[in-house]
Amino acid sequence: MKPILDLNAFDVAATANLDARLASSVRRRSGLFGAASVLFYDHPLEFVRAEGCWLYDAAGNAHLDAYNNVPCVGHCHPRIVEAAARQLAAINVNTRYLHPAILDYAERLLATLPPALGNVAFTCTGSESNDLALRLAAQFTGGAGIIVTESAYHGNTAAVTAISPASFKRGGPPAHVRVIDAPRADSPDGSAVAAALASQVTAAIDDLGRAGIRCGALIVDTIFSSDGVYADPPGFLRAAVEAVHRAGGLFIADEVQAGFGRTGSTFWGFARHGVVPDIVTMGKPMGNGHPMGAVVTRPEILEAFCATVGYFNTFAGTPAAAAAGLSVLDVIEQEGLMANTHAVGGHLLAGLRELGLRHPVIREVRGAGLYIGVELTPRSDALATRVINGLRARRVLIGAAGRDGNVLKIRPPLCFSAVHADTLIAALDATLSALAP
Amino acid sequence: MKPILDLNAFDVAATANLDARLASSVRRRSGLFGAASVLFYDHPLEFVRAEGCWLYDAAGNAHLDAYNNVPCVGHCHPRIVEAAARQLAAINVNTRYLHPAILDYAERLLATLPPALGNVAFTCTGSESNDLALRLAAQFTGGAGIIVTESAYHGNTAAVTAISPASFKRGGPPAHVRVIDAPRADSPDGSAVAAALASQVTAAIDDLGRAGIRCGALIVDTIFSSDGVYADPPGFLRAAVEAVHRAGGLFIADEVQAGFGRTGSTFWGFARHGVVPDIVTMGKPMGNGHPMGAVVTRPEILEAFCATVGYFNTFAGTPAAAAAGLSVLDVIEQEGLMANTHAVGGHLLAGLRELGLRHPVIREVRGAGLYIGVELTPRSDALATRVINGLRARRVLIGAAGRDGNVLKIRPPLCFSAVHADTLIAALDATLSALAP
Repeated sequence: MKPILDLNAFDVAATANLDARLASSVRRRSGLFGAASVLFYDHPLEFVRAEGCWLYDAAGNAHLDAYNNVPCVGHCHPRIVEAAARQLAAINVNTRYLHPAILDYAERLLATLPPALGNVAFTCTGSESNDLALRLAAQFTGGAGIIVTESAYHGNTAAVTAISPASFKRGGPPAHVRVIDAPRADSPDGSAVAAALASQVTAAIDDLGRAGIRCGALIVDTIFSSDGVYADPPGFLRAAVEAVHRAGGLFIADEVQAGFGRTGSTFWGFARHGVVPDIVTMGKPMGNGHPMGAVVTRPEILEAFCATVGYFNTFAGTPAAAAAGLSVLDVIEQEGLMANTHAVGGHLLAGLRELGLRHPVIREVRGAGLYIGVELTPRSDALATRVINGLRARRVLIGAAGRDGNVLKIRPPLCFSAVHADTLIAALDATLSALAP
Repeated sequence: MKPILDLNAFDVAATANLDARLASSVRRRSGLFGAASVLFYDHPLEFVRAEGCWLYDAAGNAHLDAYNNVPCVGHCHPRIVEAAARQLAAINVNTRYLHPAILDYAERLLATLPPALGNVAFTCTGSESNDLALRLAAQFTGGAGIIVTESAYHGNTAAVTAISPASFKRGGPPAHVRVIDAPRADSPDGSAVAAALASQVTAAIDDLGRAGIRCGALIVDTIFSSDGVYADPPGFLRAAVEAVHRAGGLFIADEVQAGFGRTGSTFWGFARHGVVPDIVTMGKPMGNGHPMGAVVTRPEILEAFCATVGYFNTFAGTPAAAAAGLSVLDVIEQEGLMANTHAVGGHLLAGLRELGLRHPVIREVRGAGLYIGVELTPRSDALATRVINGLRARRVLIGAAGRDGNVLKIRPPLCFSAVHADTLIAALDATLSALAP
């Protein structure tokens, strides 16, 4: 397996290939960040300005951003910047004081979710959200066992790294974790996906049981992004969730990737599958860049946990976070970004599939809304890395995903237009055509 | 022991005692946040505006903030608000792209630290910082054992909660954690503190060894805030740190509380003790409210960890975080806040000690700079809670700390003036005088 931090990563040994200014910047950074310095692309990028779906370098070149989902309503959206700045100037205290903005936001957020999920706990990152979710599940069920997919990535804390197979450069998840296959559609119409997934989940529950470990939760990123993007057929999660519930475990929907309208037809990724999670976790797009996350769950699940240690997070749920979060919801609604995501995502998917007819290295194009994976063949990251860097040279930015790193990951801001989509398709066409045979 | 979330906490069962508007707001909040809703004071506070050391309620009443260390250079400081807002409007991407601001900030930050600590990894919260620090220590030393003080609080992730005795409402830390006494100065001149602390650390190392667990690290908040604030005599940490090093363990200085000039005479709390940590963790005051944290360590420690899983944090080290962090360092320097902290802290300490001569419920006044603990007698939180709420009624805000919750925690923004200090002292005098005998 290709560790997630190695996908599309700049090789610091190649610094000598860069021009003097860039090389000096990379060296300065390596000196300060040490072994934890991770950069994208074979020629790292430095941007000075951003707007909508565009990132601008110091020379004024515009790069089309088809990768970043944090600025979900567009880079530096003036409404979000203004709302956060206004709040930062007025007051920004922690949630042990009352403030109406976070209550307004909590109500707006919960209104987008199934009514059973009545409580929200705010965090600062998706990692903190998943870390808390794991403890809620363990406390409520008494089960320590966790089931994850083969290349799952759920964040960077100790507990969450343990359930993220994609994070391991050496070794793998510890004994309480069971790893199942990504939900591949091996049958032509995808009808076997649901059954295969449910049978893998059942086998994992049984295997945990044999080891004396009760199943606490199945957790999935509902668009399976790091697994390589698996969206179809909608509903394939249902039988797996039922199997976990039958075993007394919870279903945690990690919506860090698929949430906030990203998949176009539903506001949450789990909703495409017609399931109701026990816990929903959120992060990246929530504040369009303001560091914020959340865990939404049933009151009794939170209550069981709060009887043991409780939860408070200093930077979470502040008036500034509420202002950013509220304005993101406003913009998604008022700028019709879900409809845009649905329409442009469909256009992009169709265009990429059409490209697949002419370029045999494209094995499959998958996705929903503006979360699209283009699986290349053969199953190795070498070709994907060339394609991603070819696109980067053409000033179109995407990333990589999948167990073998052979899936192009396309995940632009939700204000991506049909013109942007056509630019991406043309650049990919040119890149693939330029590949040496 | 009194769990930290219960200290100075509003009892939701007392909602009926509040006026209708406040009661309705508390109920609305309880409905949304459920069991995780934690508020301060017997009458929760709602503020609409803040500036410097003042928090204003909707009626325009000013409350003197002698508690919040997140807005370290003052609430809503215009320089920090402006710097963050300007950067949010220009560009705010993750660190897999190059940006000079975070390198400038990393250099400025590392320049305040011992030269051996050459690398920094940015996070979003102090909890994330300590979570990473624990893993760095475990990987580098091969030791899983962690030594903490009796009422330590290091954050809210699963791994960090496990080493935070103050967090447990039921049970306590797991088998790899050893809990030692707070560094109480039981000898009249405090000279026995260092020896007692070192001997406790050595005993903990031995006890871990008998359980087959190697010592990975000693971690302390260098002002021992949740333990009840222990500052003197400077240097008392040295022998304990040497004992841990002899055992092959690391010393992690948690500077979330004591860092960024808080203790007045040195920029970092560990520096008062003349020790060089292996890992330094940061959070709360770093961005004056922007959610940011950091782990600073020796390059070889980070390298060992990055060979196993590595570290990347989407919201950490962004240009906006760098802008906030840089402007905090600028303001501390240009407004002379360390000198102010030293002077006003000394004035406040002297005034509180003078008060202790007249009020026998004051057992001891401890602290450094603007981190002060006033220990009340008897050893129970009942009196401290009355005093804190008495001060709150007089519009002066402080908190509680210590194993038994009997220590008044005074920790204002660093721009606290002598006039503010006198206001606090007068209000405490009046509050103590008004206590029924």
